[in-house]
Amino acid sequence: MKKIRIGIFGYGNLGRGVESAIRQNEDMELVAVFTRRPPETVRINTEGVEVCHVDNVLNFVDKIDVMILCGGSATDLPTQTPDLVKYFNVVDSFDTHARIPEHFANVDKEGKEGKHLGIISCGWDPGMFSLNRLYASAILPDGKDYTFWGKGVSQGHSDAIRRIEGVVDAKQYTIPVESALEAVRSGSNPELTTREKHTRECFVVAAEGADLARIENEIKTMPNYFADYDTTVHFISKEELIANHSGIPHGGFVIRSGKTGFNGEHNHIIEYSLKLDSNPEFTSSVIVASARAVFRMYNEGKTGCVTMFDVPPAYLSSKSAEELRKTML
Amino acid sequence: MKKIRIGIFGYGNLGRGVESAIRQNEDMELVAVFTRRPPETVRINTEGVEVCHVDNVLNFVDKIDVMILCGGSATDLPTQTPDLVKYFNVVDSFDTHARIPEHFANVDKEGKEGKHLGIISCGWDPGMFSLNRLYASAILPDGKDYTFWGKGVSQGHSDAIRRIEGVVDAKQYTIPVESALEAVRSGSNPELTTREKHTRECFVVAAEGADLARIENEIKTMPNYFADYDTTVHFISKEELIANHSGIPHGGFVIRSGKTGFNGEHNHIIEYSLKLDSNPEFTSSVIVASARAVFRMYNEGKTGCVTMFDVPPAYLSSKSAEELRKTML
Repeated sequence: MKKIRIGIFGYGNLGRGVESAIRQNEDMELVAVFTRRPPETVRINTEGVEVCHVDNVLNFVDKIDVMILCGGSATDLPTQTPDLVKYFNVVDSFDTHARIPEHFANVDKEGKEGKHLGIISCGWDPGMFSLNRLYASAILPDGKDYTFWGKGVSQGHSDAIRRIEGVVDAKQYTIPVESALEAVRSGSNPELTTREKHTRECFVVAAEGADLARIENEIKTMPNYFADYDTTVHFISKEELIANHSGIPHGGFVIRSGKTGFNGEHNHIIEYSLKLDSNPEFTSSVIVASARAVFRMYNEGKTGCVTMFDVPPAYLSSKSAEELRKTML
Repeated sequence: MKKIRIGIFGYGNLGRGVESAIRQNEDMELVAVFTRRPPETVRINTEGVEVCHVDNVLNFVDKIDVMILCGGSATDLPTQTPDLVKYFNVVDSFDTHARIPEHFANVDKEGKEGKHLGIISCGWDPGMFSLNRLYASAILPDGKDYTFWGKGVSQGHSDAIRRIEGVVDAKQYTIPVESALEAVRSGSNPELTTREKHTRECFVVAAEGADLARIENEIKTMPNYFADYDTTVHFISKEELIANHSGIPHGGFVIRSGKTGFNGEHNHIIEYSLKLDSNPEFTSSVIVASARAVFRMYNEGKTGCVTMFDVPPAYLSSKSAEELRKTML
């Protein structure tokens, strides 16, 4: 069997996650890692794989079947994905929900012109959570969706705390409110405010002599980030932060509660949940399965842009259709 | 918008569920219900819809876009689905897991010859549970799957109890063992025996003067059905059975626990669960969404047989691809 030849474009947490996920999929091989840094300064975990500067990516046009883009959604992907889909089949994890239609249109246009296929917004939200919202709403049209995130580390919120004067380091956890989850699971279809759905817990290392009361107040009243939530702040030592809060766990719940019957007399709860030790590694695992799908759809003649909504589930698996029907259906 | 014209073939619990689900989907209309009984003896819940004898089904070849088969997997569907796919696009909920490859081959052959498309084994297991096994194993190749059923009514086990001498009526619940679920969720990847995964609880109405100890013993030692499980038997009155055990609830859990990272250092739990007030109505709701998908795939030129593994998720929804990307991704 000829392996699917993968390139990694950008080598941070996500790129390393993709690298390790490729090792778990025998039908794939990593060909090269592309970086904006001087390549000789980047050490990767796979022997015999080239590290190249991003400027040389077009040398690999005939050597890579799918390029996996591991940059950020704010500034990298909006230009990188449309640029690279001209020359490669691509996968990204673009996660700025509000800008997905625009990003889709850009990638679709360039992909069609360049005769390649891109799949965007692969991961868990967007990604597996989106798929579960779609399946559940298609099955139970008369119902209501709920998405809860956590318990997990929010990078954006942790960064916001670190920008406060007197803060040395910080980690912020988003935590779903158990009683809200239970209300949704009961089928009562509650209307929930932001404050009722999630709490925020912050572990903060303050500079020596810093005014802790002021820091706590600045966190709790920060608009958009914390003001609409019940927030708890714990001041801890640098050592404790490193020992207990170095991981990047995350997860969450997608629940649909819906009714069936001639008089809506029966209720049903569909719940999908994730409990992830490593947010970037799980996202990477979804991305790598999506790379397989994009390769197959491209080989069937598809170009432009798709999302996981367009992918026949069997295309994500390394197993044959016959084997899937026999063992998993 | 031209509606998708649906026929219901077989009018039991499932057929009625399909009838009520069609009402929740504005892009569909019910054209006719087909029955083996004398049509004049069958009263349906939708006004203005014909009830016809199954023998006259071919009169509807140009009037029905998708025929939904609501018969049983033991004797009805193995012949009905291949027979009808010659003339109609069809959906069934064939659930004899071991015979799916054979059923698929039969429907695929007749569908290709008759230039129609069939989708088989739609529902929740097979169906949504299968999809979740597939997605989760594609994402986490280094992992282990667990499926738990219940709490819910098992029709086959209830029937088995009713065949015991001295039993007037009975209802059997399959119940997942909470400690086994927790062990799986912990990521410890336990090996679980049949007895460790589920218990069985039976509510039995005995004939007056029947030997209760004998009945209980016959239930608990019944091979295949109960001998491998911890089984509880409650003798109750006919009235209590009707009052408290008339529903057909069901549900269950599909959990995958898998590892990522260069040394498998991170664990992830993917869990999908259903809590259903009405097993047949939920199955019907999946079937009706699948009817939409089969109609779309047929219009793209696809013939033969597919399963939910082959269906791009967006095809199940009445919403457009643009709307789905904007609102659910």
